[in-house]
Amino acid sequence: MKITLHTAQNLERFICTNANNNGIILGNGKEGVSPMEGLLMSLAGCSTIDMIMILKKMRQEVKDIKVEVKAKRKDNDPRSFTKIKLCYTIIGKVKSKKAQEAIDLSLEKYCSVALSLDKSIKIGSSFTIIKN
Amino acid sequence: MKITLHTAQNLERFICTNANNNGIILGNGKEGVSPMEGLLMSLAGCSTIDMIMILKKMRQEVKDIKVEVKAKRKDNDPRSFTKIKLCYTIIGKVKSKKAQEAIDLSLEKYCSVALSLDKSIKIGSSFTIIKN
Repeated sequence: MKITLHTAQNLERFICTNANNNGIILGNGKEGVSPMEGLLMSLAGCSTIDMIMILKKMRQEVKDIKVEVKAKRKDNDPRSFTKIKLCYTIIGKVKSKKAQEAIDLSLEKYCSVALSLDKSIKIGSSFTIIKN
Repeated sequence: MKITLHTAQNLERFICTNANNNGIILGNGKEGVSPMEGLLMSLAGCSTIDMIMILKKMRQEVKDIKVEVKAKRKDNDPRSFTKIKLCYTIIGKVKSKKAQEAIDLSLEKYCSVALSLDKSIKIGSSFTIIKN
């Protein structure tokens, strides 16, 4: 896996591209997504891909998934994460027990982003099912 | 810090936004940046912000920085990273010793993304200076 970064606009914005030339732009958070926000987004995306795959295998009818991620950082440098909480909203005919199992499988077994993070970061979760 | 994710296009693309409504789109790597690529991009962005700040404090004239990041993942689930290498190209009147110090300070002390990663991941680096 390979990515490249180059700068734009006075070294304050970063154009990042993958091998297929798909890209994202990072910035300081006010103008453009910050790198730490990018990490949380990558975590949410990775876990959502798992959730969709796992719930489909469990024969649950997932229509949509939304995720809100809140995180706390250390007060001093390095301002790494201390706590991350993922709140999933699952839309579809999904059993509560299956949703919990899927979340646990993602965060503990499959999610490559979650499992690339420092073990000292407490990763929590909650979910809501909207059956429509 | 808070981000949200919602899906688009048959649950295969993920629109992620931060509190200021800045966003990125994630996908499977072929169509859209994958979450694991997103993590590497966040790492490159975070370290580049450090590098620019540190080199300026060291009174080095940085005109531009480019970064190429290569990474290896485990063969089996969870396919987390095992090795990450950041190759910096620094453009400007920058002393080699200062560049190495800045990279070390970033990856070992300041980079919030690098220091949120699992300690088992080997993070390496190299750099080239183009003095123009």
